Amino acid sequence: MSKEITLNSPLDMHLHLRDAEMLKLVGPLTSKTFAGALVMPNLVPPITTKEALLSYKSRILEACKGDTFEPFMTLFFQEYSREFLEEVKDEIIGIKLYPAGITTNSENGVAAIDAQSLRPTLEAMSDLGIPLCVHGETNGFVMDREKEFMPIYEGLAKSFPKLKIIMEHITTKDAVDLLDKYDNLYATITLHHLIITLDDVAGGMLQPHLFCKPIAKRYEDRDSLLNAAITGNPKVMFGSDSAPHPKHKKESCGCAAGVFTSPIALQVLAELFEKHDSLDNLNAFLSLNAQKIYDFKALKKDITLVKEEFTVPNIYEDFGENVVPMYNNQKLAWSIK
Amino acid sequence: MSKEITLNSPLDMHLHLRDAEMLKLVGPLTSKTFAGALVMPNLVPPITTKEALLSYKSRILEACKGDTFEPFMTLFFQEYSREFLEEVKDEIIGIKLYPAGITTNSENGVAAIDAQSLRPTLEAMSDLGIPLCVHGETNGFVMDREKEFMPIYEGLAKSFPKLKIIMEHITTKDAVDLLDKYDNLYATITLHHLIITLDDVAGGMLQPHLFCKPIAKRYEDRDSLLNAAITGNPKVMFGSDSAPHPKHKKESCGCAAGVFTSPIALQVLAELFEKHDSLDNLNAFLSLNAQKIYDFKALKKDITLVKEEFTVPNIYEDFGENVVPMYNNQKLAWSIK
Repeated sequence: MSKEITLNSPLDMHLHLRDAEMLKLVGPLTSKTFAGALVMPNLVPPITTKEALLSYKSRILEACKGDTFEPFMTLFFQEYSREFLEEVKDEIIGIKLYPAGITTNSENGVAAIDAQSLRPTLEAMSDLGIPLCVHGETNGFVMDREKEFMPIYEGLAKSFPKLKIIMEHITTKDAVDLLDKYDNLYATITLHHLIITLDDVAGGMLQPHLFCKPIAKRYEDRDSLLNAAITGNPKVMFGSDSAPHPKHKKESCGCAAGVFTSPIALQVLAELFEKHDSLDNLNAFLSLNAQKIYDFKALKKDITLVKEEFTVPNIYEDFGENVVPMYNNQKLAWSIK
Repeated sequence: MSKEITLNSPLDMHLHLRDAEMLKLVGPLTSKTFAGALVMPNLVPPITTKEALLSYKSRILEACKGDTFEPFMTLFFQEYSREFLEEVKDEIIGIKLYPAGITTNSENGVAAIDAQSLRPTLEAMSDLGIPLCVHGETNGFVMDREKEFMPIYEGLAKSFPKLKIIMEHITTKDAVDLLDKYDNLYATITLHHLIITLDDVAGGMLQPHLFCKPIAKRYEDRDSLLNAAITGNPKVMFGSDSAPHPKHKKESCGCAAGVFTSPIALQVLAELFEKHDSLDNLNAFLSLNAQKIYDFKALKKDITLVKEEFTVPNIYEDFGENVVPMYNNQKLAWSIK
């Protein structure tokens, strides 16, 4: 009989579900196997009102109906009044801050991230217990952007010691090391950043389907991320940053950034943790740490994986949309039972 | 009246002309404006015999007929006997060494570059005055490959002090700095490495048409290359490394490495040198340095550029082949008169 493992309420704490037909395609590819997901607000226009938030949430629930699945909603960071934050706080899990222009649909982000100028909003968030999720990159040289952002994280962490700050999709040893320095800093790590380096993107032939932001870094960075995940470091959570773009936008001049991993993440994580003799820590990375950090109880949903080969589809298509997953046409060691 | 400059016998000392229909398409795009070009031998199979060499040269001359243009032929490095090298030396300008598997069609390259094991061939080349052209990259992390190759260049330069060694298409400050250390080290620099960094390839959207090997590096590297070129450093020559791949191989999953610059190189170099107040050094970079380093006299060919706007074609197509040039659809400040 094949080996099996059961994941309890797996969570994806950083996810792009898009909207309209793409949402209909990719929503169920997450809700089938995850108990919940933190949904990014960088639509066009971004989610900045309670009305837009609730409306988006209802479209997500509609796309994922039939599955035990809870979308954790976020607002796109801008200056918000304390009154507005009080009114909306029960509907959101956090607020996502983007530096302006740093990634897909972030044109309306913050031009200068400065603890003082953002103080009224951040202080209100801190008082109300609303976590701040951050895309932590400067507009410097592509390999240095995250490292250069570390002083900004430090400034935020020191200025707002009670504000929970999530360093999203970290990609460097610098970010992993910073976790130990401030009690109120946490991080999400994607699947692909546990596996690839810049060599996989641009070291051989150019691989647009592995092109993402932040870009994959060096081997020592990847190994540091991997170590944090497989040891069950309580300050890190799985956040796929799974980001669907249609095939023609990935395989073209001016390829969009994003790796699509939702339907294969659990299988690949099982293989990776097993390889490093760390299956015992997989539930911490995939669920328990997030529940503690964000202080909530996930929906009960057990997902059993069986060690039987699974060939990843070449492409997922429906509703006139399509998306190519990581490892397309390749064989994985584990399957969803 | 528009400003004009005249280039005397411009040379491209590192060029990929391919073969068959692609050669027919791209050959004239070089021979129209260049007086000569050093032609890379990495065909499939690579050029390793006198027969293949002469046959390839005649196909190049046929493709470029009507133009004042001299192809400088190279052999693909492998262990060659002194007798063979004596027989072929008047037909070649140098021998190109590729580490195995490092770039397009380099599968038959050298697995371990070691001065001792390659001594018989390199000693014969040194005695016969045949320069060694080297693709200097290790198989390490993509951003470190050229830097890691510096000790190999040093070993070769020290072991064979009379062998002229050309560091091809250098991309780092490390390589520029090494030029000063050994009398017998020289270098070619491409157009694109004078202009772009990794930010242009992968810092915004992914730009497959700017993906090349060696990959573009950091700003300090680019600035060091640019400084060597515009100051007329006598140890550096222009070598475009212009490398045509059909559009569908560039804009796809697994994009091939290479930037196509032949038909726009002179115009862009004029703009770049003018911007840095260095037009006086353009003939050194484009022709005189190469003639001194390789010790030959170029065919007489004056090319006049005029400061009038030129819109780069979207794509060059003929003979069933096509190739997208750098700056396609964009306006350049200078035109060929």
